[in-house]
Amino acid sequence: MDENFLLTTETAQHLYHDHAKKMAIIDYHCHLVPQMVAEDHKFRSITEVWLGGDHYKWRAMRTNGVPERYCTGADTSDWEKFEKWAETVPYTFRNPLYHWTHLELRTAFGINKILKPETAREIYDECNEKLQQPGYTARGFMRRYNVETVCTTDDPVDDLRWHKMTRESGFEIKMIPAWRPDKAMAVEVPANFKAYIEKLSEVSGVTISKFSDVIDALRKRHQFFAENGCKLSDHGIEEFYAEDYTDAEIEAIFNKVYSGKELTKEEILKYKSAMLIEFAVMDAESGWAQQFHYGAIRDNNSKMFRQLGPDTGFDSIGEFNTAKAMSKFFNKLNDRDALTKTIIYTLNPCANEVVATMLGNFQDGSTPGKIQFGSGWWFNDQKDGMERQMNALSVLGLLSRFVGMLTDSRSFLSYPRHEYFRRTLCNLLGKDVENGELPASEMPRLEQMVEDICYNNAKNYFNF
Amino acid sequence: MDENFLLTTETAQHLYHDHAKKMAIIDYHCHLVPQMVAEDHKFRSITEVWLGGDHYKWRAMRTNGVPERYCTGADTSDWEKFEKWAETVPYTFRNPLYHWTHLELRTAFGINKILKPETAREIYDECNEKLQQPGYTARGFMRRYNVETVCTTDDPVDDLRWHKMTRESGFEIKMIPAWRPDKAMAVEVPANFKAYIEKLSEVSGVTISKFSDVIDALRKRHQFFAENGCKLSDHGIEEFYAEDYTDAEIEAIFNKVYSGKELTKEEILKYKSAMLIEFAVMDAESGWAQQFHYGAIRDNNSKMFRQLGPDTGFDSIGEFNTAKAMSKFFNKLNDRDALTKTIIYTLNPCANEVVATMLGNFQDGSTPGKIQFGSGWWFNDQKDGMERQMNALSVLGLLSRFVGMLTDSRSFLSYPRHEYFRRTLCNLLGKDVENGELPASEMPRLEQMVEDICYNNAKNYFNF
Amino acid sequence: MDENFLLTTETAQHLYHDHAKKMAIIDYHCHLVPQMVAEDHKFRSITEVWLGGDHYKWRAMRTNGVPERYCTGADTSDWEKFEKWAETVPYTFRNPLYHWTHLELRTAFGINKILKPETAREIYDECNEKLQQPGYTARGFMRRYNVETVCTTDDPVDDLRWHKMTRESGFEIKMIPAWRPDKAMAVEVPANFKAYIEKLSEVSGVTISKFSDVIDALRKRHQFFAENGCKLSDHGIEEFYAEDYTDAEIEAIFNKVYSGKELTKEEILKYKSAMLIEFAVMDAESGWAQQFHYGAIRDNNSKMFRQLGPDTGFDSIGEFNTAKAMSKFFNKLNDRDALTKTIIYTLNPCANEVVATMLGNFQDGSTPGKIQFGSGWWFNDQKDGMERQMNALSVLGLLSRFVGMLTDSRSFLSYPRHEYFRRTLCNLLGKDVENGELPASEMPRLEQMVEDICYNNAKNYFNF
Repeated sequence: MDENFLLTTETAQHLYHDHAKKMAIIDYHCHLVPQMVAEDHKFRSITEVWLGGDHYKWRAMRTNGVPERYCTGADTSDWEKFEKWAETVPYTFRNPLYHWTHLELRTAFGINKILKPETAREIYDECNEKLQQPGYTARGFMRRYNVETVCTTDDPVDDLRWHKMTRESGFEIKMIPAWRPDKAMAVEVPANFKAYIEKLSEVSGVTISKFSDVIDALRKRHQFFAENGCKLSDHGIEEFYAEDYTDAEIEAIFNKVYSGKELTKEEILKYKSAMLIEFAVMDAESGWAQQFHYGAIRDNNSKMFRQLGPDTGFDSIGEFNTAKAMSKFFNKLNDRDALTKTIIYTLNPCANEVVATMLGNFQDGSTPGKIQFGSGWWFNDQKDGMERQMNALSVLGLLSRFVGMLTDSRSFLSYPRHEYFRRTLCNLLGKDVENGELPASEMPRLEQMVEDICYNNAKNYFNF
Repeated sequence: MDENFLLTTETAQHLYHDHAKKMAIIDYHCHLVPQMVAEDHKFRSITEVWLGGDHYKWRAMRTNGVPERYCTGADTSDWEKFEKWAETVPYTFRNPLYHWTHLELRTAFGINKILKPETAREIYDECNEKLQQPGYTARGFMRRYNVETVCTTDDPVDDLRWHKMTRESGFEIKMIPAWRPDKAMAVEVPANFKAYIEKLSEVSGVTISKFSDVIDALRKRHQFFAENGCKLSDHGIEEFYAEDYTDAEIEAIFNKVYSGKELTKEEILKYKSAMLIEFAVMDAESGWAQQFHYGAIRDNNSKMFRQLGPDTGFDSIGEFNTAKAMSKFFNKLNDRDALTKTIIYTLNPCANEVVATMLGNFQDGSTPGKIQFGSGWWFNDQKDGMERQMNALSVLGLLSRFVGMLTDSRSFLSYPRHEYFRRTLCNLLGKDVENGELPASEMPRLEQMVEDICYNNAKNYFNF
Repeated sequence: MDENFLLTTETAQHLYHDHAKKMAIIDYHCHLVPQMVAEDHKFRSITEVWLGGDHYKWRAMRTNGVPERYCTGADTSDWEKFEKWAETVPYTFRNPLYHWTHLELRTAFGINKILKPETAREIYDECNEKLQQPGYTARGFMRRYNVETVCTTDDPVDDLRWHKMTRESGFEIKMIPAWRPDKAMAVEVPANFKAYIEKLSEVSGVTISKFSDVIDALRKRHQFFAENGCKLSDHGIEEFYAEDYTDAEIEAIFNKVYSGKELTKEEILKYKSAMLIEFAVMDAESGWAQQFHYGAIRDNNSKMFRQLGPDTGFDSIGEFNTAKAMSKFFNKLNDRDALTKTIIYTLNPCANEVVATMLGNFQDGSTPGKIQFGSGWWFNDQKDGMERQMNALSVLGLLSRFVGMLTDSRSFLSYPRHEYFRRTLCNLLGKDVENGELPASEMPRLEQMVEDICYNNAKNYFNF
């Protein structure tokens, strides 16, 4: 993994070193904890910053035969957990974790050693020592990676205090909230939904007794997010919901679930369909971009869910035939002139071609790349997945208008994924040039294209 | 894009230059307008011949932020449209449009310049000047590309007058009709269906009052098409329809829709299932080949559909689990000895393996490659899509028996797609030879295989 | 196809020649006929050992236009069949049959000639001559390929007499039965099911009058298989069945079908769901591994099924959205601590990512690689299919813990598929090393990884 890692041609090396590398990072979708930025969090150990909350690593460890207590247990020390991870690393050959691990050690800590049992202790100690130094805090890492803007993921009921504190602290990197209202659609468990609506009522100051009150309350929060710099929303959905419904139906469904009764499957679908439309209309009115992350099946392991809760490494790729619903949903919005800038992410790479061609149905010439195919998401966040996403987008749409990479990460050490993405992008273009599939004579345009995908496109698209 | 474009090995270059290139073109499925061939149409401008009706280019332009009036508008000039296309071209890096554009300029007009804003005017003028010269007409282009036979796409009610006129004009290139009876299955809108049946009645001279009359009328037209040289049919379907039905049910469904009543979803499926069988039986009796193009979802953008109608760039790739229905349909035909030569095209490349293995279930030793996996269709009509189709066919069937490429195009400038396909084919084989996966010692058989896939297989299969 | 066939880098050559090649073969899933091993079967001709029962070859021949009588007919001679196969071979360029054919001729008979019409007779004669010599019998071939253990595929009612006879004969290669209880779930045809249950009753000595008797009888047989060395089960299913059911429902369904009445679709699903759970619980109690082969649609050609029966080349790849059912099934088992070691095989490579990520949901740290993604199965048993399976497993799981290859074959000449797999594996790793994606400095670990995947992992995982 030298400086030409993943760059197999001279053109790729030129494009990366002279163009991609210098661009600042816009990380327009991540799961950083805003409080840690606000307070410029200092990390106890490499285990905290690197293994805490990283379900990718936990999955690999469990697969490798490591007992759960070394992944998430409270009765094991930071060193014990790190040691087990170091034992696992050599078993991750060909997995992106192997690359991420060493890219992160190198770029965050300047460590060029290979992590394995033989080197575990020295690396552990060196990292921990550095973490005591200035420059290795939350903000320090963001500066180190030349981050310009990050968008966190926030619930409508969030008071955004940490965003405000960060802004007011004079921190030169922008931390912007993003609107993630999944809980307002989660009508599966009436009690949870009711509690959420009550919280929403309290935060918004809107007394909620019927469905239109919910929308009023959410609109107030949407406005509040906009005032705090929000420019985009995000929706985590299994598949697209585009059932037909009437206002009266939604009103009745709301009353039913709000009064504590379980909904039928059909009622749930109708409710979600209505909410997706309502949210999309709000975003269109505010000129935000909307993101849809679809295709995951979550919490597959009930035993571990009861023990650890969500987002702990028990989610996987689902199978859905959702193309028609996706089309119907966007068409409804388009028909009422309420289709805003949109990014579609699929977890199942088999839908790459479906998504990449869906875009074209709703491009309207108003904004270059108005409808976007989101970067290789989650499990696809590696060379193979990124290449497949970029290849599908290239042959079925316009790669040149792509808004590029985001980390989707909870960790301050994940920024090398942008480097990983940029190297992969430059490598694809470089190979095409050297194969004669792209014209070497058009190098300035290729260079521009690289810079655009790395930075300019996102900057312009989101209007940051 | 020199003479070895896409040919990355010496073997590939040999196979292409010495074997593929010289073969005449059989374009057994296209959407040329027969009248333009009959009248040897002369083009007003490069915009007419190149951008008019090309929804691939429109999609790219819309994605690039170009307003609709420059794509399809009546209030913009030919030059303005061309200029916007030229601005878009540099944004199509890695899209097949970039290659097609320059292949077409080179092979049709002898222009080796790269199209971009800086060269737009000179290319526009040079093309338009050439279009005034003899040899740049509809027939001129067909001759230039060494076309031997084309099959157009025609409705059963078509009088085929332009085919007849072309034949009688002594034009040395065969233009044969192909039977595309989609409208006879389109029972979704009773009024449209009724109008179609009335037209069918008029054209066939059969009074239609019951379902069997429809079949009688269609059989007459099928016979008429055969008399005009037709050798193959084509069906555009979302997925395969293989519902069980009785004659009485179909009779009742026909009466219902013909009397103007809307059908249920189930009735529609039964009707389509019945029609697919009826058409397949006719084809089997005539010894035609039948083609099935499945997997598109069409007219996704209602607003633009109302404005521009179908086939204007608002279709995309669907998701269907249709393997069992496909199997059931072919099995029904096979069971009654009515399964003729068949070509299956999937729009979603995820079904490549399903289709490529479905073939083998119904190969019966009667004709080499009797059941065919159709070439990369529509969105898959590029290097990546072609390679995936040919790789799936290779490992799951016999590539050597493949009937090869067709343009599926409305344009007289699309023949370089055959060149594109041939280069891709030769490149795949060349790489395998140089990797030791195909034996260099068997070169004469490989050369034969290339010539077969480019020309001989189609010639023999369709019995042209 | 020299000694570096498929090994395109020096690292690949090193890994294969110095590490992969020497490892013995554990063929943990195959369809050998145990009697042939027990009796050390001597083959009449190359046609018997090579073409008899090989539906891959029959499919290719049918596709190539060869009449059925030369594939499966009783009225054609061994030579005539062989001759037709030899005519077909040159048409299989790019199909794995081309490679397998020549690998098998070379490794089994020492023949380095290319099979084609010109060489057919001499190869036929040379093979037949060798087949008369000692060392070319069933056991002889197993020894030649350095086989250590094979697991056959056996019905619970099987008396395992040939396994016992083989064991007692002192044959140094282990032939172990594997439990394949598909027929106990096949409730589609009541008469067949009843006959099977009666046979089960007879063999087990358990009088069967209600559902729990079925389970008692099967448990006895499961125990009998364990006593005969069985360590793993196998289930051929279309998709995963995970319907909710009650004991009373299953009892009623059993009574209904056992009394000769056809079940509804829903009843069939419930019954299969219950049986899958029952079998999984037995396997968990015995510490066996369980295998699920899903995704085939079988017997698509009724006419040929009536003529030739099952497994004669008329099966193909299905399309199923089974991720949620798969998750639910494993979750149910996991929740009651009854999820044993499991291998999931998908026939449709589009589900590679679904399966590869499903594993991680149920890895629990108890056994390295407890939940496995099965090797490229059936139609995917070639370079392209294997690479896709290994790439998906690599980026979404831990390739290093993979239990590797099996032949799934009926033939004593199929062992070169292990060689094929090993070359492909070494080639993937070699390319990564030479691209800088795997560290050359970690060569000893890479060598270990190769040996593990070829042999050690299976040895440890199955506890052979």
